[in-house]
Amino acid sequence: MLTVFGSTALDTIRTPKKTLKNVLGGAATFAAISASNFVDTGLIAVVGKDFPKQHHKTLSKYLDLEGLSVENGKTFRYDGKYDNTLSTRSTLKTELNVLADFKPTVPEAYRKSQFVYLANNDPEQNTELIKEFDKVKFSMCDTIDFWISTKRDAVIKMIKSVDAVVINDEEAKLLTKEFNLIKCAKKMMQWGAKYVIIKKGEHGSLMFYDDVIFPTAGFSLEDVVDPTGAGDSFAGAMIGYLASKKSTSLSEIKKAVVYGNVLGSFAVEKYGLDGLLKIKNGDITKRVKMYEKMIRF
Amino acid sequence: MLTVFGSTALDTIRTPKKTLKNVLGGAATFAAISASNFVDTGLIAVVGKDFPKQHHKTLSKYLDLEGLSVENGKTFRYDGKYDNTLSTRSTLKTELNVLADFKPTVPEAYRKSQFVYLANNDPEQNTELIKEFDKVKFSMCDTIDFWISTKRDAVIKMIKSVDAVVINDEEAKLLTKEFNLIKCAKKMMQWGAKYVIIKKGEHGSLMFYDDVIFPTAGFSLEDVVDPTGAGDSFAGAMIGYLASKKSTSLSEIKKAVVYGNVLGSFAVEKYGLDGLLKIKNGDITKRVKMYEKMIRF
Repeated sequence: MLTVFGSTALDTIRTPKKTLKNVLGGAATFAAISASNFVDTGLIAVVGKDFPKQHHKTLSKYLDLEGLSVENGKTFRYDGKYDNTLSTRSTLKTELNVLADFKPTVPEAYRKSQFVYLANNDPEQNTELIKEFDKVKFSMCDTIDFWISTKRDAVIKMIKSVDAVVINDEEAKLLTKEFNLIKCAKKMMQWGAKYVIIKKGEHGSLMFYDDVIFPTAGFSLEDVVDPTGAGDSFAGAMIGYLASKKSTSLSEIKKAVVYGNVLGSFAVEKYGLDGLLKIKNGDITKRVKMYEKMIRF
Repeated sequence: MLTVFGSTALDTIRTPKKTLKNVLGGAATFAAISASNFVDTGLIAVVGKDFPKQHHKTLSKYLDLEGLSVENGKTFRYDGKYDNTLSTRSTLKTELNVLADFKPTVPEAYRKSQFVYLANNDPEQNTELIKEFDKVKFSMCDTIDFWISTKRDAVIKMIKSVDAVVINDEEAKLLTKEFNLIKCAKKMMQWGAKYVIIKKGEHGSLMFYDDVIFPTAGFSLEDVVDPTGAGDSFAGAMIGYLASKKSTSLSEIKKAVVYGNVLGSFAVEKYGLDGLLKIKNGDITKRVKMYEKMIRF
């Protein structure tokens, strides 16, 4: 099985055409639901007593929720606004609420997870939590500018404790203080990551392992309405695919990156989680085949 | 044969590590020398009496120079400075000099060119010049923000008069007033371009034809020292490759785009034209094979 640890949120997302209020979101929500297309996925997260029943029902349809704590207080809330081009988002408000004092633990049933994804949580928490698993075959983490700015040393320590880092291009530059993405990846590998995957939004991604570089183009889409959660969906699909194959061969990791691109493309086509929730049987295979055809020459 | 029409310049290029003064540059110089790796290439351009003999010698090593006018006055000069990340360039000075009053004509021997590349010249001049060729099989143009801002209608008219447009992503957005690159390409196709190639720098490119989209990742490079001329080298390689194959089949156009990416990567590895001038026999084929291996999964 796969365990995903990270945030579940009530999001307010303001896009040029539509504003969504208090919708189900959060990095771990996107990653875990994306991964659930490939493998049984358990979620370690926290919500408040205000967390709507229908959101709980949605999560339970896709995920094992033994690791979901419901605490007194309000759920983590995020409010962000995209510009007209949908390329930059500014944060209007972040309310940590129950997330602030959350002490995550790994349920007994999750300890045997061979695949673990640590979303963009406090790096110290990620580094501690990974130790609670008994036989990790492949672990992957993400991080964000907030942790890089406030706890850079802890982020570097976290990188040492996992197999793979998946990170946005801008955050990779901020973290490593390099401009060239190959240089960024090399630094993260020097810090201890075996694999580095740099996400470049619509431009696809770069995967690094040893002296191998695997660049992928993004899956081209005309109608992007809401980029929220695309990177998390990418990461979830990657590790979900690997967990389903029980493999971490280089060849499967490359395929996992392609699945990452494809699930990211589903995420941005609809508002909030809808892009992921509306995936039907066969949609993913079909789009991977379309992608293969698209890039062939 | 292939004819390239555009600017030959004396460039001053300021990069974080090195400043080059009055080096051989210009869009047509890069495009034509890049193309000359594939096919006999004639250059239509103008320089002043101050144009150094050794630059003339360099050009003559690679190109047919019957179309190169030497006029009284000074050569077109460009002075630009890159930021620390090499991702943005600001123009410090542009002196049109002999370029200002240049009235290009097509030498008799060039009129039979089946392949014609119109670099980022005055769109009205491009639209007139293409008429002077007798049997064009495939024509391609580029444009820049200056023409989009000052002569947008003429740019649109020029697009109608060629088969393919090759253009930077930011300029495609500026020209079409769209944000999504597929929407940008569709608009240019509505205006009459059969093929649209949007260049995305290190992120590669998108090629559009009818309802086909062909995305490519860039050739990943760790040591980029000077991005000058990369896009021109891309365009030159594309049309040079097609001219060498005497074909405009979709399959060859896709391969041409890959050659475009590869020649762009040679251009940025060294300062000024050096990246192109130092290409040895077999280097291009070798790098195309490396690229194919790199992106395979």
